[in-house]
Amino acid sequence: VDLIEAALAGNRLALARLISQVENQTPTGKQMLEQLYPRTGKAHLIGITGAPGVGKSSLVNRLAHAYREYQGGKVGVIAVDPSSPFTGGALLGDRVRMRDVAGDEGVFIRSMATRGALGGLARATAEVALVLDGAGYETILIETVGAGQGEVDIARLAHTTLVVEVPGMGDDIQAIKAGILEIADILVVNKADLPGVEGVERALKAMLEMAPEVEKQGWKTPVLRTISTLNTGFAELVKTIQDHKHYLYQSGGWLRRERARLAAELESLIQTSLVARWRGQVSDEKVQEVVDRLCTRHISPKQAVDELLS
Amino acid sequence: VDLIEAALAGNRLALARLISQVENQTPTGKQMLEQLYPRTGKAHLIGITGAPGVGKSSLVNRLAHAYREYQGGKVGVIAVDPSSPFTGGALLGDRVRMRDVAGDEGVFIRSMATRGALGGLARATAEVALVLDGAGYETILIETVGAGQGEVDIARLAHTTLVVEVPGMGDDIQAIKAGILEIADILVVNKADLPGVEGVERALKAMLEMAPEVEKQGWKTPVLRTISTLNTGFAELVKTIQDHKHYLYQSGGWLRRERARLAAELESLIQTSLVARWRGQVSDEKVQEVVDRLCTRHISPKQAVDELLS
Repeated sequence: VDLIEAALAGNRLALARLISQVENQTPTGKQMLEQLYPRTGKAHLIGITGAPGVGKSSLVNRLAHAYREYQGGKVGVIAVDPSSPFTGGALLGDRVRMRDVAGDEGVFIRSMATRGALGGLARATAEVALVLDGAGYETILIETVGAGQGEVDIARLAHTTLVVEVPGMGDDIQAIKAGILEIADILVVNKADLPGVEGVERALKAMLEMAPEVEKQGWKTPVLRTISTLNTGFAELVKTIQDHKHYLYQSGGWLRRERARLAAELESLIQTSLVARWRGQVSDEKVQEVVDRLCTRHISPKQAVDELLS
Repeated sequence: VDLIEAALAGNRLALARLISQVENQTPTGKQMLEQLYPRTGKAHLIGITGAPGVGKSSLVNRLAHAYREYQGGKVGVIAVDPSSPFTGGALLGDRVRMRDVAGDEGVFIRSMATRGALGGLARATAEVALVLDGAGYETILIETVGAGQGEVDIARLAHTTLVVEVPGMGDDIQAIKAGILEIADILVVNKADLPGVEGVERALKAMLEMAPEVEKQGWKTPVLRTISTLNTGFAELVKTIQDHKHYLYQSGGWLRRERARLAAELESLIQTSLVARWRGQVSDEKVQEVVDRLCTRHISPKQAVDELLS
């Protein structure tokens, strides 16, 4: 409780500790999340996704800067690194690249790695976003690698999703996927000083025209250029993100996304509770014994489930 | 049942239909999976993962060829495309690149896309692999993009995991992640005719030395070169994969991975069953009403769970 008060008063160390408690799912963390919950629901969650090598971290760094300059308010950054499930952390990339904004008291940065559990990362990210939201961070940037289901789950968490591409990848069918385009509210061509920028823009626009417009009535996905190294294009990017926010408010999309997000989180919590309840009722020995017979093909998966749930 | 007999007799159309039933989780599909289960457990599951653009599809194509030539037996290919969760399918990349082996009666190719459900893709892939295993495919190649949790789940499904890199990405900290190295049993530098091949090899070997050796006692992860366009390096790749298979047999790793895989699949089935049972006991209206109060912050997530599970 002291941690919450201190975090709300602007104590960054307290906030970091609070987040660790929540991330590690300690009883204290769960209790504090409960207490913070009534304060949440105000932040604008912005997802930034894209393949490795498109320069997401530098872009997020510049974008956080730009939000501070043009929009004001506190900015939270959550850097999600799902490709390191075993070591439990970004090797060093994220932390190094985030150095620029690390000195700004109005910017709070958190790196996350997956806990190995299926869907665990998406939920932990959602919870850290809730904490920052409750602690008064108006803008929360969530950076994630864009390729798998986990990233799509994280994109679903955001109100506004940016998909980042770079020149030179436009020719590769594998690099630009229809699914990624469909989750994009704004497309960003980063490293726009490299040759081939027109080509990738053309490819993106062509694919946008082919893609079915799922729940994006009235919003035409824009394609913007940025150059992180030269700090170019970020004023316009902030403006466009704000435009999308206003569009969401006016179209009812904000509430719809909020509702979908909370419903998904609730479902995941219920799933966890149900499994935990069941695990409390069955012995480890019983589970091992059933897995043994499953391995030797004496019983089928369905028979194993029936036996364990009976 | 007729489908099973026909598929076992080598009818490819029957096999394709059988897989569709299983993939779509129809009652027939579930029943047929039950029937096939006692026949499974023989196939060698080989995962091939790597970032977009490293040429996984061409490599898998060549590898399937090479298995047919040097090893014999039927080869199944499962191409997983997790980046297209909404459109439900590979755009065209996989199918185009797989053309070479498509004429070989001993090779069966299946493309999969995620169904949107969390963890759904990993389970569906596991089930399709079971069908191919039961239908007598001795070698099953599972191709997937390597970046997210879903891909790690799919790697866990395999007995042997190949991680593919290319020259020129070695300098980028983001491109080679420690987590990916830890799931690799064999590292492949594809497009090895490009400049920079020594650099990426050196970077990979250096990172391997830094990475903790998790459950890989006695197996030193080799780094091999391939050139898919010239069909170079595939005899040695097949030999190295077979070496890993023998290592798994001798070290007990085969059984350990099999057990871990089946236990994980069982847990996922139990989770699904528990949620389905619960959903049968609570009305949609009740759930909607609770989500409403959650959105307006009248109740917290924990209160919502307690209310829905009481």
